[in-house]
Amino acid sequence: MLVPYTLAEIASRLGGRVVGDPDTLIRQVGSLEHASADQITFFSHLRNKGKLAATRAGAVVLDDGAQSLTVIPRIVCENPYAYFARVSQLFNPVPTPEPGQHSTAQVSPAARVAASARIDAGAIVEDEAHIDERVWVGAGCHVGHGSSIGEDSRLYPGAIVYHECRVGRRAIVHSGAVIGADGFGVAEDAGQWIKIPQIGGVIIGDDVEIGANTTIDRGAIDDTVVEDGVKLDNQVQIGHNVRIGAHTAVAGCVGVAGSANIGRHCTIGGAAVILGHLKLADGVNVSAGTLISRSINEPGTYTGVFPFDRNASWVRNAVLLRHLSDLADRVRALEELLRTKEKNG
Amino acid sequence: MLVPYTLAEIASRLGGRVVGDPDTLIRQVGSLEHASADQITFFSHLRNKGKLAATRAGAVVLDDGAQSLTVIPRIVCENPYAYFARVSQLFNPVPTPEPGQHSTAQVSPAARVAASARIDAGAIVEDEAHIDERVWVGAGCHVGHGSSIGEDSRLYPGAIVYHECRVGRRAIVHSGAVIGADGFGVAEDAGQWIKIPQIGGVIIGDDVEIGANTTIDRGAIDDTVVEDGVKLDNQVQIGHNVRIGAHTAVAGCVGVAGSANIGRHCTIGGAAVILGHLKLADGVNVSAGTLISRSINEPGTYTGVFPFDRNASWVRNAVLLRHLSDLADRVRALEELLRTKEKNG
Amino acid sequence: MLVPYTLAEIASRLGGRVVGDPDTLIRQVGSLEHASADQITFFSHLRNKGKLAATRAGAVVLDDGAQSLTVIPRIVCENPYAYFARVSQLFNPVPTPEPGQHSTAQVSPAARVAASARIDAGAIVEDEAHIDERVWVGAGCHVGHGSSIGEDSRLYPGAIVYHECRVGRRAIVHSGAVIGADGFGVAEDAGQWIKIPQIGGVIIGDDVEIGANTTIDRGAIDDTVVEDGVKLDNQVQIGHNVRIGAHTAVAGCVGVAGSANIGRHCTIGGAAVILGHLKLADGVNVSAGTLISRSINEPGTYTGVFPFDRNASWVRNAVLLRHLSDLADRVRALEELLRTKEKNG
Repeated sequence: MLVPYTLAEIASRLGGRVVGDPDTLIRQVGSLEHASADQITFFSHLRNKGKLAATRAGAVVLDDGAQSLTVIPRIVCENPYAYFARVSQLFNPVPTPEPGQHSTAQVSPAARVAASARIDAGAIVEDEAHIDERVWVGAGCHVGHGSSIGEDSRLYPGAIVYHECRVGRRAIVHSGAVIGADGFGVAEDAGQWIKIPQIGGVIIGDDVEIGANTTIDRGAIDDTVVEDGVKLDNQVQIGHNVRIGAHTAVAGCVGVAGSANIGRHCTIGGAAVILGHLKLADGVNVSAGTLISRSINEPGTYTGVFPFDRNASWVRNAVLLRHLSDLADRVRALEELLRTKEKNG
Repeated sequence: MLVPYTLAEIASRLGGRVVGDPDTLIRQVGSLEHASADQITFFSHLRNKGKLAATRAGAVVLDDGAQSLTVIPRIVCENPYAYFARVSQLFNPVPTPEPGQHSTAQVSPAARVAASARIDAGAIVEDEAHIDERVWVGAGCHVGHGSSIGEDSRLYPGAIVYHECRVGRRAIVHSGAVIGADGFGVAEDAGQWIKIPQIGGVIIGDDVEIGANTTIDRGAIDDTVVEDGVKLDNQVQIGHNVRIGAHTAVAGCVGVAGSANIGRHCTIGGAAVILGHLKLADGVNVSAGTLISRSINEPGTYTGVFPFDRNASWVRNAVLLRHLSDLADRVRALEELLRTKEKNG
Repeated sequence: MLVPYTLAEIASRLGGRVVGDPDTLIRQVGSLEHASADQITFFSHLRNKGKLAATRAGAVVLDDGAQSLTVIPRIVCENPYAYFARVSQLFNPVPTPEPGQHSTAQVSPAARVAASARIDAGAIVEDEAHIDERVWVGAGCHVGHGSSIGEDSRLYPGAIVYHECRVGRRAIVHSGAVIGADGFGVAEDAGQWIKIPQIGGVIIGDDVEIGANTTIDRGAIDDTVVEDGVKLDNQVQIGHNVRIGAHTAVAGCVGVAGSANIGRHCTIGGAAVILGHLKLADGVNVSAGTLISRSINEPGTYTGVFPFDRNASWVRNAVLLRHLSDLADRVRALEELLRTKEKNG
């Protein structure tokens, strides 16, 4: 059962200014389109003006510039989206796991597991591992030899942490994520690949979220590092010895090759690729689908994708693109011809 | 042991016209290259004419235009590839799971599990979940609180369904697929990311196939929706609040960002990317590797990939491409020069 | 505890020439930056000259050309990176699994499991499967009906092998990898997709490494084949009936569509895409992020990515690119104008 709050109670906890009936009772958050009279929604894009006009929500979070666009009860604040996040957290608190270990969990006697932690069915915690206070290790998860999971972290069913990795506090690790598998370290020798043992670990800071089926490889020699507050979406691949700076967000399907060093407060768009051994400054935004092939020293937004088109137009342009140097040659020839004419007047 | 059928029996079940000996006995399907005398193959591309001439198959499925290309027994039909699919289903029926629950499965007493369903070793079915008739929940699968799996669906080992998700009838969910993990919902506030609880679910229609390690995120507020007959290949990422229209097929490694709305009867080529909040009309075909960055209102085929080339040629063209505006400026200068000459002529 | 070796002992096992004190005692490998006095490092790129000068490593592996760049004890050899790989293997031998089966492993009495193999907690080995000598089947792994795992192979926790697949000797299969899921085989019929049963298997040679969450689909009719010595990084997707030639290395996030035939000794860069039914010759190098859309008959390096730029520059060039045919038309018009002038001149 969800606990209801009045608008006044919400504003007293989270700030903001109530316009309209402060006793409006709210039980949950909702979308502009589908919220009902006991739900609060948010408005942060003018493109949604029509939806705001039509909403049946009981209240709305918006900023000062937008507050006159509606007459329903509202909370006015500076950053409606962030405010909404906090309202939603208020109505949807993360459940504290019930302490204990399922009878089918396999917890090594040589592991250190806090009494307040929960280890679910079939999960495995190996020797020397450390599971801290209030951690939830979901069913079928694996925490390898010597790895540690910081307090209040949550590992969803089937998440896997290899040996000698460190996950910080308040981490959220989704199902199918694999932390600490071997980096792709092979040396060529006479046409064959020789494996380089991957003896580094993975160090993950506090407040990191790791999406479903995302992979973070262990370091070849030194560690792979993901700093505090980093958010990784699903199916992200982080190569060995990468460093991702604090509070950087990485969207789905991104690949980061080995030893890349990404700054703090960056955003990496979906399916972007960062090649190995590059350095990205703090505050770099990489657009979706962009392949970064050299280091970036200045903050800003960087893009490199082929603009899509109807297939027939694309074919025409793609052929011309492949012969762009011919076109450049022809322009140069014209320039010279005219220059010669000019001279010969 | 496979049950044999004569060509006549096959045609009486599936339609088509037998040419050649109707008593030819067939035990299995085979490829043009490797089929043996008791196998039936198919021919649907003229590029395979040589292989058809050389095949040792006992029979072949083809269309009227191709039927004179061979003298072996054959079934003539309109759509040989679809016909072949049906023939293969005839010889390779999906096994009905043996009803029951493995002793190591963890099925909540508060779950509703049909007597004809099978729950394999180490699988987990949580409170309020509903497993319908003849469903197979493979070993190590996870069906979360309140989720339902429709009749005749098959979850291969290690597939994971979070809480409050609905999978329709006759679904095939391959290993490592994760349905219902949190969408990537974060709001920026003073340089940090605040998590937006993801309280929507995932609704999956009937006859949907979900490939290995594919991820479908739960909605932020409302649900993520995958309609009837959708086929998702491996390692596809579907963001929160996406809608994929009925009978759309999505090839491997595709990423669909949050709130994208893809129409019915679309095809999305491998490794394509659909950005968030876009709308694709019914009948849109996106080519492999193409990033879709704005909505598409008309059916048709859309493409946008950099044509690959030998590295040296690519480097030359890529540099010119980066200076395309210079080239355009030079062409404009030439045009003006000539215009001036003309005037002054 | 790690066994120490002197430089002389290392060189006597692995070759190379010791310069400096042959009795230098080494206990582990280290990086140029962080190695300590009892560790050996390597130097193979001139860009790391500064790091070499500053290293506190006890010894370094380098080639003849570089050997005078330092005065610390060193091993001089032809291929320092490969040599280093071997040194690291010497200090970090792969542990032999302790023979036996965990009490919670589910091993079919109809499976054949070597006495020296180890089957860990919750792992499942189905009927007719064959687990060879010294194989490690990690916790929660699944080896399906009739599949075989060759001697000395290692399946990390949660790796999944479907039925009727063959994994060779000395394989390393990382967590979340799925071998043998159904290929994406559907035939269109009246706007709906009909599934084509995938009855082929997967054949994997010796000395193959398969990264975390990588997927290798079973063949539609014939088998999918990965030859000896192939190295696949994480999140690689191999479609049905692909063949990957021996000693080819495939970096992370690559997608290979159905029936592609990749030669021997190729390298496929990260996030590259190989379309279906193509043939790549031996010795082809595909650059990261490149989509290969037609067969390649000659060895060499092939590239096709849009060069990234600051977003504003990219927008300008992308627009021009979409109108490249207009630019080409204008150049042609100029050429004709001048030709006409010339004639009439």
